[in-house]
Amino acid sequence: MSETKKAPLTLQDIKDAQVRIKPYVNRTPLLREEDMDEALGCHVYLKPEMLQVTGAFKARGAFNKVLSLTEEERQRGIIFSSSGNHAAACAYVGKMFGIKAYAVMPKDTPKEKIRNCEKRGGTVILWERDYQARVKKVADEIKEHGYTLVHGFDDYTVMAGQGTIGLEILEDEPKIKTVVVPIGGGGLISGISTAIKETDPSIRVVGVQAAASCGYYLSRLNGRPTRMTSQPTLADGIECSYPTENPYPIVDKYVDEIVIVGEKEIAEAVTLIGQRAHLVAEPTSSVVVAALLAKKIVVSPEEKVACVLTSGNYDIDLIGKFYKGEEVEGVD
Amino acid sequence: MSETKKAPLTLQDIKDAQVRIKPYVNRTPLLREEDMDEALGCHVYLKPEMLQVTGAFKARGAFNKVLSLTEEERQRGIIFSSSGNHAAACAYVGKMFGIKAYAVMPKDTPKEKIRNCEKRGGTVILWERDYQARVKKVADEIKEHGYTLVHGFDDYTVMAGQGTIGLEILEDEPKIKTVVVPIGGGGLISGISTAIKETDPSIRVVGVQAAASCGYYLSRLNGRPTRMTSQPTLADGIECSYPTENPYPIVDKYVDEIVIVGEKEIAEAVTLIGQRAHLVAEPTSSVVVAALLAKKIVVSPEEKVACVLTSGNYDIDLIGKFYKGEEVEGVD
Repeated sequence: MSETKKAPLTLQDIKDAQVRIKPYVNRTPLLREEDMDEALGCHVYLKPEMLQVTGAFKARGAFNKVLSLTEEERQRGIIFSSSGNHAAACAYVGKMFGIKAYAVMPKDTPKEKIRNCEKRGGTVILWERDYQARVKKVADEIKEHGYTLVHGFDDYTVMAGQGTIGLEILEDEPKIKTVVVPIGGGGLISGISTAIKETDPSIRVVGVQAAASCGYYLSRLNGRPTRMTSQPTLADGIECSYPTENPYPIVDKYVDEIVIVGEKEIAEAVTLIGQRAHLVAEPTSSVVVAALLAKKIVVSPEEKVACVLTSGNYDIDLIGKFYKGEEVEGVD
Repeated sequence: MSETKKAPLTLQDIKDAQVRIKPYVNRTPLLREEDMDEALGCHVYLKPEMLQVTGAFKARGAFNKVLSLTEEERQRGIIFSSSGNHAAACAYVGKMFGIKAYAVMPKDTPKEKIRNCEKRGGTVILWERDYQARVKKVADEIKEHGYTLVHGFDDYTVMAGQGTIGLEILEDEPKIKTVVVPIGGGGLISGISTAIKETDPSIRVVGVQAAASCGYYLSRLNGRPTRMTSQPTLADGIECSYPTENPYPIVDKYVDEIVIVGEKEIAEAVTLIGQRAHLVAEPTSSVVVAALLAKKIVVSPEEKVACVLTSGNYDIDLIGKFYKGEEVEGVD
């Protein structure tokens, strides 16, 4: 038998992650939402990760990463470049294990996001808004202090944590036919699609991006990684100007379709999820429902479709505007 | 041994109900909400029954009742006097088993509530708003057609169904110290308090009413069932001018404290639940969180407290107003 190179992310990695993070994360339910069937044209299931600790799926990857560190690495601390859900999750995990957690954020980050990270025990380092400048700052900090980088999506151990969502969906509804997942950096869908496809390749995995920022969608059209200039979007958690090295080949291999949705569809989906499923979804979360609502995915009425709702952390006053049918500008 | 009269509702009835309804209802999670601890002054757990089928706990009681009927009773049909969550639940259960379901509602019921019952397969009978007139109409219909009454709260089989919430809380967190439950008709808290107290009498059960309509609260003050003239309240699902015959003695026996909350507190709690727990609570649901937020219940910082959130069916535009901090009139 010839030896084959082990893939950098496998079903077994995700199963190992599931055991590792189990004591620390919520086992979110897979909710059957009959009241959404007519609007979305299929049998709707929601995986509500806004009910996850810290209000987002990000806790899964952060726990898996930190729990995989050596004692020495833990003592040195972790660093990450994020001002949103990933930062909150890393700070939370760091605090739980007494590990110093450093978040590099743009100088103009809203105070509430800074506070949200600090109150969970994170130390915020404010730096240039320019992405490359922040990447360099992180590298410099690592060089000087020996921190471990916890990347939000370009890290296989983080992806394995996120992939546990896929395992849970299959446990709860083995007859699921389609799984719909938001794509930002691509770490979430890399984990979930690996879990799904290496268990049952006949299950369809569909990725959804905001049209305003859809690097993966354009890359698939072009057949190679493609860079675009992003526009502001309500779905600020999944901005994606281009695919990065590690998730790209996994998305390329395992994701059957990638579709895009507009700002109006995203806002409508936030309201529908509030009304029918009684969940507060941030717009980033709602893109999956938006894609079905706008008929961007071909489904049949009896088809069991699982939508991964990633998170619920958003200005509640803005959510109020969606509910009232008022217009909200696409901004971060 | 002297024979003692069996209580009309026992822990065993609730355990039986749990087995009976299990295939049909959602096993809602018990969510640990660390982000609410500081505001509420304790270790907060939420039981989110807005994630129940039909968006409210009422499905539990309706299933238990219908599944307890004889084949002959099923063929004749069921009737109920409700325009809200109980009506939707009964219609849903009726449709599932091919049982005719008749809802008696006041003539001026909002069209959306009528539609919500009809779209789930219920037949709506519009009648006088006067409560006694509707009670008579229900009795007349039963006399003429032999329907079975599915009362929203004055029925032990319905109470047993609702009590399954108590069993689930204990399964998920046996070390819970206090359980906080809204009181309207008293059926929910009768079931839950029986499940809790007959398992572990040391666990405290607290009932919460809207100050505008607090028959149980006044009755406890007076030491006997007391009637009041209700005012309109945001918490329209738990209006209660007086306690009825069947739940009253159970509440009297098993509920340790009853507290009341004001309209402003109710509205604030809706926003807090949206913001921190990412759940859409109707105001009726939010009274339990309001009671803790307003320090109406004495708790300690390490105390594990479970709040039962009953439901999430409410005009989403009004929820939007809460989120935006706008004033909403207390109306039905």
